[in-house]
Amino acid sequence: VADLKAYYEQVDALEGAFVERLRKAVAIPSVSAEPERRPDVVKMAEWLKAELETLGASVQYYYPGEQHPGLDLPPVLLGRYGSDPNKRTILVYGHYDVQPAFKEDGWDSQPFDLTIDKDGRMFGRGSTDDKGPVLGWLNVIEAHKKANLEFPVNLLMCFEGMEESGSEGLEEMIKKEAKNFYKDTDAVCISDNYWLGTTKPCLTYGLRGCSYYQLEVSGPGQDLHSGVYGGTVTEPMTDLTNLMTTLVDNKGKILIPGIYDQVAPLTDKEVALYQNIDFGMDTIHEALGSTTTISNDAKETLMKRWRFPSLSLHGIEGAYYAPGAKTVIPAKVIGKFSIRTVPNMELAEVTRLVTAHVEKEAAKLGTNNTIKVSLIHDGKWWVADPDHWNFRAAAKATEQVWGVKPDLTREGGSIPITLTFEEETGKNVLLLPMGTSTDQPHSINEKLDKKNYIQGTKLLGSYLHYVAEEKME
Amino acid sequence: VADLKAYYEQVDALEGAFVERLRKAVAIPSVSAEPERRPDVVKMAEWLKAELETLGASVQYYYPGEQHPGLDLPPVLLGRYGSDPNKRTILVYGHYDVQPAFKEDGWDSQPFDLTIDKDGRMFGRGSTDDKGPVLGWLNVIEAHKKANLEFPVNLLMCFEGMEESGSEGLEEMIKKEAKNFYKDTDAVCISDNYWLGTTKPCLTYGLRGCSYYQLEVSGPGQDLHSGVYGGTVTEPMTDLTNLMTTLVDNKGKILIPGIYDQVAPLTDKEVALYQNIDFGMDTIHEALGSTTTISNDAKETLMKRWRFPSLSLHGIEGAYYAPGAKTVIPAKVIGKFSIRTVPNMELAEVTRLVTAHVEKEAAKLGTNNTIKVSLIHDGKWWVADPDHWNFRAAAKATEQVWGVKPDLTREGGSIPITLTFEEETGKNVLLLPMGTSTDQPHSINEKLDKKNYIQGTKLLGSYLHYVAEEKME
Ligand SMILES: [Zn+2]
Ligand SMILES: [Zn+2]
Ligand SMILES: [Zn+2]
Ligand SMILES: [Zn+2]
Repeated sequence: VADLKAYYEQVDALEGAFVERLRKAVAIPSVSAEPERRPDVVKMAEWLKAELETLGASVQYYYPGEQHPGLDLPPVLLGRYGSDPNKRTILVYGHYDVQPAFKEDGWDSQPFDLTIDKDGRMFGRGSTDDKGPVLGWLNVIEAHKKANLEFPVNLLMCFEGMEESGSEGLEEMIKKEAKNFYKDTDAVCISDNYWLGTTKPCLTYGLRGCSYYQLEVSGPGQDLHSGVYGGTVTEPMTDLTNLMTTLVDNKGKILIPGIYDQVAPLTDKEVALYQNIDFGMDTIHEALGSTTTISNDAKETLMKRWRFPSLSLHGIEGAYYAPGAKTVIPAKVIGKFSIRTVPNMELAEVTRLVTAHVEKEAAKLGTNNTIKVSLIHDGKWWVADPDHWNFRAAAKATEQVWGVKPDLTREGGSIPITLTFEEETGKNVLLLPMGTSTDQPHSINEKLDKKNYIQGTKLLGSYLHYVAEEKME
Repeated sequence: VADLKAYYEQVDALEGAFVERLRKAVAIPSVSAEPERRPDVVKMAEWLKAELETLGASVQYYYPGEQHPGLDLPPVLLGRYGSDPNKRTILVYGHYDVQPAFKEDGWDSQPFDLTIDKDGRMFGRGSTDDKGPVLGWLNVIEAHKKANLEFPVNLLMCFEGMEESGSEGLEEMIKKEAKNFYKDTDAVCISDNYWLGTTKPCLTYGLRGCSYYQLEVSGPGQDLHSGVYGGTVTEPMTDLTNLMTTLVDNKGKILIPGIYDQVAPLTDKEVALYQNIDFGMDTIHEALGSTTTISNDAKETLMKRWRFPSLSLHGIEGAYYAPGAKTVIPAKVIGKFSIRTVPNMELAEVTRLVTAHVEKEAAKLGTNNTIKVSLIHDGKWWVADPDHWNFRAAAKATEQVWGVKPDLTREGGSIPITLTFEEETGKNVLLLPMGTSTDQPHSINEKLDKKNYIQGTKLLGSYLHYVAEEKME
């Protein structure tokens, strides 16, 4: 691709300006989870809109409404850069809100003050999640302008301010605008995830879904003292722990009949994808802080994480949970568990199987307590075609920038909006990460390596160039 | 007994004064659990000491020391009334501290403002637990003085101010003073419990013990996200719920081998004691707010409560416990359970059996998590001889005052100090309740019926007269 060399040089020349842009963004504490920070979230939206407009993009606000009476949701930024009917149109998504952060949580630096160490690690809340990647798109525009390069595609943008708090209102907006503001979309690119490790970039083509359940066991009218009632009442905790053990074993096998019948069989092509992935058990053991994995084979572990379902017991609401030794018989206890779903599991069928299983096991208990199982929420798994031109372009760009073919990865968790973009636009969706597995989003000392920020800016721009050239099937 | 008629008349004549005494006591919010109320607890001690001294008793403070640096424990009152070597000496125990109470919790009246309704129910925090019974002893002295009756015994008193917060420092005091201040003790009487129902008085001769354990399962270095790690790590919750189900079934049967071997066989004499007890399933179902009892036979239910061991699962520390749907894999979870113990269970043996059982079951799980079981605390069961002269005197007094032979009851819970009094003085201990099962100590709208307060004052006085006459074996 002709223009890339000039583009890369321009990006390198602008490194200082790009870092300053990130510093300004990090300085605005746009924490969506804290209502008292909402003005900062709005301020961040305004700052981002102004930056985009200065670069020549047109931006409009979409207001999703109120979160609570008296608390407005921050606006979603609907942006466009370029409208040449002869170019492809790429919709990019990111979020400008961040997780909460307090110095006292254990940060080594002020979380809203971008701090760069001698290794080029740029510490700050939002540096990698997701302000760095969002600004990456702005950097791409700026470098093209400064180098007088033609922008290779039309860029549509969706930058929201509630991602860390459930993306409230976003799905409704996408459903509305997919056929309006975003109607020209040819493919979607989301940069809001991470490399699997620290050395090899990746493209992500799948996410598991999540179906979350609660299992309520109730009997007595109120909590009881175990001295007075122990041995005389049917204790809800006894029934609940018994039911919980019927759901999954400690090798991770889901014990609910029928669950595995829906899982897509492993294909040779899929197995081949796992062969080259740069991932060892060391990486997972280090991240885990222990060696208590179910398998000690890296490929098997990745498959368990990405393409097989799992069931986790999260805890119990209503039971005694504090340190100490309270002698209570809890009257009503609610077990929480969720199933990570994968292709081709049907969510309604999963819930039907869960319900039937719990009812059967509850009957076996012969209890006089009342048992209820219910779905709290479910979100579907997502899997894209990694052979699509959108992925081919991203793979070429990665090889160009990083000098290595990217791993094709899935992720164990869900990013529900990914599926919404796919379903509503009807187009291929690509997850194209900028940062690495050590960036610690959502944790203390969140960082983005300067190298990943600058090379990532090159990557995003290169991707747009390769997109312009890829043969569209 | 000669003097009782005159005594009863005097008590009736002083009814108004006795109620006023209770009103003054309730007005002092001596909540031991709230550090900011500590001055009120001390004020209550001072008020009680002054009242006793006005009645002619001698009282000294025992200071148990500091609860925390900067927070003194309130004094225990060591009192004596009479020191005639020809009279028996009875040690009575009670507590002048109370549970927390706030109008906003749902009280129908101000909790520290004694409020008497048309049925003579005297509502107020501490009315029945334990200010009413404590003042009962003061009332006994006053009525004897006013009626010019000779006091039948020497009275030793132990009134503490930390009972609702674990009786901190009390055991040490008793161990020290049993052979000093309390060395003349011939028998002990504790009035700090309740009738089994509302119509028939009782004497209580047994309490279960409590051995409290924690069962810790740990693996990962920190809590994990189930999207990323679900299916790949051995989840501590799965192991813990499995282990918890091996402890007890939902019919209340303890599944730990050997536990029942230590339980004293049921004797005919004991069975006979249960035959006359005034107690129906209605009472327990009403108190429970449901009909989810294990048995529907009242005698069997009482035996399960009083004289058989039980095991309750209280909850889990470290797991997700809030409302909502957090997708966490908890890294370290601590199950809490306790065993109510009965004669002739040896506490050390109970712990040995629990430990051996958990270790065996943990091995069966084949887990790579780390499992630890440990005793948090244990308190021994207590059972007194209900044929002792101390009980005979109380039975005669009850029949005299209430016109009915008292039920001989045990209780399911433990009052650890009971056993300490028995062990340290080497004398018989009697639990002689004043209030009824509907008094709601520790709950909103705690009350003491005026009838129980006045008749209870007669009962305590009569008991001392019968004690003086009983043949000592
Ligand atoms: Zn993010
Ligand atoms: Zn995030
Ligand atoms: Zn009490
Ligand atoms: Zn109490």
